[in-house]
Amino acid sequence: MSHLTKVQQWLAENDYDIAYVSDYKNIQYFTGFGSDPIERVLALFIFPDKDPFIFAPALEVEAVKEVGWKYPVYGYLDHENPFALIKDHILQTAGNPVKWAIEKGNLTVERYEAFKQQFPSADFTGNISPLIEHEKLYKTPADIELLKVAGKWADFAFEVGFNALAQDKTEQDIVAEIEYALKKKGILHMSFDTIVQSGANAADPHGAPKADKIRPNELCLFDLGTVYKGFVSDASRTVAFGQIDAKSKEIYDVCLEAQLTAQAAAKPGMTAAQLDKIARDVIDKAGYGQYFIHRLGHGMGQSDHEFPSIMEGNNMELEPGMCFSIEPGIYIPGVAGVRIEDCVYVTDTGVEPFTHYPKDLITLPVK
Amino acid sequence: MSHLTKVQQWLAENDYDIAYVSDYKNIQYFTGFGSDPIERVLALFIFPDKDPFIFAPALEVEAVKEVGWKYPVYGYLDHENPFALIKDHILQTAGNPVKWAIEKGNLTVERYEAFKQQFPSADFTGNISPLIEHEKLYKTPADIELLKVAGKWADFAFEVGFNALAQDKTEQDIVAEIEYALKKKGILHMSFDTIVQSGANAADPHGAPKADKIRPNELCLFDLGTVYKGFVSDASRTVAFGQIDAKSKEIYDVCLEAQLTAQAAAKPGMTAAQLDKIARDVIDKAGYGQYFIHRLGHGMGQSDHEFPSIMEGNNMELEPGMCFSIEPGIYIPGVAGVRIEDCVYVTDTGVEPFTHYPKDLITLPVK
Repeated sequence: MSHLTKVQQWLAENDYDIAYVSDYKNIQYFTGFGSDPIERVLALFIFPDKDPFIFAPALEVEAVKEVGWKYPVYGYLDHENPFALIKDHILQTAGNPVKWAIEKGNLTVERYEAFKQQFPSADFTGNISPLIEHEKLYKTPADIELLKVAGKWADFAFEVGFNALAQDKTEQDIVAEIEYALKKKGILHMSFDTIVQSGANAADPHGAPKADKIRPNELCLFDLGTVYKGFVSDASRTVAFGQIDAKSKEIYDVCLEAQLTAQAAAKPGMTAAQLDKIARDVIDKAGYGQYFIHRLGHGMGQSDHEFPSIMEGNNMELEPGMCFSIEPGIYIPGVAGVRIEDCVYVTDTGVEPFTHYPKDLITLPVK
Repeated sequence: MSHLTKVQQWLAENDYDIAYVSDYKNIQYFTGFGSDPIERVLALFIFPDKDPFIFAPALEVEAVKEVGWKYPVYGYLDHENPFALIKDHILQTAGNPVKWAIEKGNLTVERYEAFKQQFPSADFTGNISPLIEHEKLYKTPADIELLKVAGKWADFAFEVGFNALAQDKTEQDIVAEIEYALKKKGILHMSFDTIVQSGANAADPHGAPKADKIRPNELCLFDLGTVYKGFVSDASRTVAFGQIDAKSKEIYDVCLEAQLTAQAAAKPGMTAAQLDKIARDVIDKAGYGQYFIHRLGHGMGQSDHEFPSIMEGNNMELEPGMCFSIEPGIYIPGVAGVRIEDCVYVTDTGVEPFTHYPKDLITLPVK
């Protein structure tokens, strides 16, 4: 059953007359067309028993047709009132819908009020966000093939980055070289800002690459991801640039054991919280629990901010088709940081990673 | 008067007890700290007569302090309920506020409902979005200095791109070289995806660079911008790669005349719609009006999607300190596309551009 058909069925079962999808990433999920409209209006309307339609900035109408969208698409110009036009199209398509399901997780209060004004007697209490969130948890075999390709490009990026490490280059230089190599291969977008952090800089898991030179005989942390046909990769590796000290080696080994233990244990039926705890216990036992200051992982697919969140308190059971990161980290301020991460998909019996770059500590020659 | 003080004054004058700023770019505007929290909660609360506070993911608390924020910042961990914690902090700071001003242009319905649940007797009808939008129209002299630097980097990027043009390279290759050169200079972010479009590809003003080779003896369109300390640049140039035909030369000349005429005419007191019409009239008169399919410009500052929008129907008067693009374009499907753009700031008597790359047609040798 197509994603759209599922929504139509859900609308019919719950007596909704119309669904309004406003998040462009979710519009992409349902239609194949996705483009951030920023302040303009891009919307998908779905009905239980009528054809859906897309409403888009006029500039985007051709692009919608090009992806093979077989239902109507209506455009508007910048000086037109999109809400009044949408009202006309809805009235023509489906009469005057009363029960709406809106995307409460995305729609702004301002647009919500604009719709209430156009449809003053409608009921906007319905929320389609939970349904979409739930549907997006389960990646199809076709999605997983695209995620694997995105993962392959992340592995390629690691190779470029590790080869580029040199004492006379900055963290930012290494980022520039990685992204240049990907763009030359036609991989035009990273799924987030590439992170390269050397030595103590890596102790800030929310830090950015600096104009600092790569430090010899220190760990160097890479966290990166690519976008491939609307699907993302996200992976981290930490390598030794030269000979590292015993402390750095120790936190690497602990982090690796946590990552490998969790990845080997992950399987359907386990809860997200249980998986988080498996990694956390390894780090706690080694005495570094206070330095593992984020959740074990996050869901991913079209972005690296999907569900399930792999963390304490999330009792969602893992199921086949779910995709998420397993990324323990140990960050000792002023000393070093380690993070090792694969994103995986859940199979019938366990999980399989999208990235395959070796995780045993790699020691690169100082040059 | 600081941006924050203005909001406090506005709250007092309008009898609001609290303002809730939710857009991270606006939080940056008021506090100096800006970071996209994606699905996490980042919030700024402002009171008429109490100190404001920031509520942020725990991972960001140190970064907030590092930018010199002198008021409280409270963190939360991923497994905690941010709305309940926010309630506690608000009660402790300011008692139980009744009249709220929320950012209706940014806040999602879901979070709006979460706040209504925490403060069931509060009144959330107040909207602070128009005030923020209005305040952000007027750039300070310090803002304009940063915008000038961002503009200088856009000029640098043009130079790199034009020098890189070659028959054996693709549009995507040129993008890769531009961004690589900027990153090596420490300019890590573009303000939007760099556009390089050769020949007929440029006829799609919303298209993306392709894996097509740069075509000799055709126009080639560049549209790009950089980010510098939270402020952006955005500029377009179209150059001839080799000898172009008479039609291409004609649409270049018409577009340039429209751009120069509008930029020379722009001044305080004129409306946005009038400025749009000045450029549009030039193109209409030359018989290409149907190929100029977007507004003349958009506001810019911290992003290239601010106000004022320079378009038909917008009767906002231009005033000193406003910043926007002047970017007429002519797009003939299957033939060629031209766009020429500077972003400018309004002075007491006219406008000054942030970018200075020559706009007379540049003919580059085919190599």
